[in-house]
Amino acid sequence: MAVYTDVAAEDLGAFLSGYDLGELLAYKGIAEGVENSNFLVHTSRGYFILTLYEKRVAPEDLPFFLGLMEHLAARGLTCPQPVKNRRGEVLGKLAGRPAAIVTFLDGMWIRRPTATHCAAVGTALAELHLAGADFRLTRRNALSVAGWRPLFEAARERGDTLQPGLCPAIAKELGALEAGWPRDLPQGVIHADLFPDNVFFLGERLSGLIDFYFACTDTLAYDVAICLNAWCFEPDHAYNVTKGRALLQAYMRARPLAPAECAALPLLARGAALRFLLTRLVDWLDVPPGALVKPKDPLEYFRKLRFHQAVASVRDYGID
Amino acid sequence: MAVYTDVAAEDLGAFLSGYDLGELLAYKGIAEGVENSNFLVHTSRGYFILTLYEKRVAPEDLPFFLGLMEHLAARGLTCPQPVKNRRGEVLGKLAGRPAAIVTFLDGMWIRRPTATHCAAVGTALAELHLAGADFRLTRRNALSVAGWRPLFEAARERGDTLQPGLCPAIAKELGALEAGWPRDLPQGVIHADLFPDNVFFLGERLSGLIDFYFACTDTLAYDVAICLNAWCFEPDHAYNVTKGRALLQAYMRARPLAPAECAALPLLARGAALRFLLTRLVDWLDVPPGALVKPKDPLEYFRKLRFHQAVASVRDYGID
Repeated sequence: MAVYTDVAAEDLGAFLSGYDLGELLAYKGIAEGVENSNFLVHTSRGYFILTLYEKRVAPEDLPFFLGLMEHLAARGLTCPQPVKNRRGEVLGKLAGRPAAIVTFLDGMWIRRPTATHCAAVGTALAELHLAGADFRLTRRNALSVAGWRPLFEAARERGDTLQPGLCPAIAKELGALEAGWPRDLPQGVIHADLFPDNVFFLGERLSGLIDFYFACTDTLAYDVAICLNAWCFEPDHAYNVTKGRALLQAYMRARPLAPAECAALPLLARGAALRFLLTRLVDWLDVPPGALVKPKDPLEYFRKLRFHQAVASVRDYGID
Repeated sequence: MAVYTDVAAEDLGAFLSGYDLGELLAYKGIAEGVENSNFLVHTSRGYFILTLYEKRVAPEDLPFFLGLMEHLAARGLTCPQPVKNRRGEVLGKLAGRPAAIVTFLDGMWIRRPTATHCAAVGTALAELHLAGADFRLTRRNALSVAGWRPLFEAARERGDTLQPGLCPAIAKELGALEAGWPRDLPQGVIHADLFPDNVFFLGERLSGLIDFYFACTDTLAYDVAICLNAWCFEPDHAYNVTKGRALLQAYMRARPLAPAECAALPLLARGAALRFLLTRLVDWLDVPPGALVKPKDPLEYFRKLRFHQAVASVRDYGID
């Protein structure tokens, strides 16, 4: 559920007068997104999404995020398109916060994805990587391998309250990943958070990608590894090789993985699992008792990590 | 912020197949309403609101609420109109909860209402009372005078932690209202919760009333008293006689208040202030420490109660 900044109709009306979007007819706060406040806005020109960027998003990163959405949309990828105001800018200020308006995208995110959905995600991810190749801005991934140890230090003291032995296991894995993390695989723009709730479908047709607020410049195959973690495990935490194969084969039809990328995939998948384990663990330990928002289960990613540690080669993910 | 039941796209699609609303294109949880879960739903036929009724709403009351909205809309009052499914029913079941679809209403609620807005509310309230006269269902007001003592008992033990002397003052007021509450004023359908966030405007034109989930059969002038409390005080808790006069005069142009209703208005306004003081107090004491949702300030209504206690006659509200 979104942290929610209230916006007065009068203030939104004044903000919209800087755009060529017609008259404000209605707006509603959307109960989605944990980083920002989002509103559905109805004007005489149609439906739009207004985002107020809350404190977890660094204002200096916004030109990268919004520029990337423009860049990708211009190359045929369906994603929210930032709307320019009359001065040609996509970023404004509302209720004391940086604010942007993007187009409304039809489609629903899939709670129970099938292999068909996974294949569509594989294709879209490869298209994103290809379309991002000539994007001129870069952004360091603060949540890649160099960012994991500070997260671990923040969680170390109380992490074992969740499961005995958790922190020693993380410490060992972290050391191994820091030592062995691949540095020379193909780099580019990655989404870095392409979970099911960020991919819209109309039936089995993928209708768009959203939420580019973790996007950054990093190892492309690491993005694939994030998707394997996010899409190809069952609710009982078992890896579904049919879904994994569908996702990987579809990705490779659009952007073939080099042998070095394939070979690194198990390690990248361990890294992706550790990254979400750590951020979830920090969030979990950070929640005050009695809070209404229940954080996501960190241990889900500990189980995924265990799976990837036991993988012998990329074959175990379903491809040769 | 709404208590939010997640609905899977697959389940919503199946639910919508019982309606003549075309294909599901998108839906978003709305961060509004504390009693129910609300979604904005886009189908090939347009935009609608889906409500899942959570446990604070009694299922046996739903035919009253939905029937009333139908009844009022048929008489020209702009309010959400329940959409019938192919079996002619307005009430279904989704995600284990009673569910209904209503039309989407344009308009915004006004954070800083003017006397012009207050006049529009007065007119709309009178029109609601007139249009409700021939509504055949009835519903007892569980939050009228007979319901206040149980609320007070629930809050009594810890109420003074909010402000010393609060509970003795409430006890005295409660006794006075129980003894003197008027029983023979004109009755009918009242909204009972017509706060600014339940009234939509487009500019200065009132575009609709929403949230009929406290509506009931009760003293019509009590509904006027609720609106005086909700609309005619400033953020510093001072009564604004210009707004009060605008609301009352507009109401009386559409539905003149009988002399007995006018005479009872100060007492009814005290009752209305006590009702919201008590429910807010119970909510306040009920919130776990550290919760993200901050409840509304009960003392706002204690100050309003003090104002009404000092009122000599209806003249102090701005009318003769």
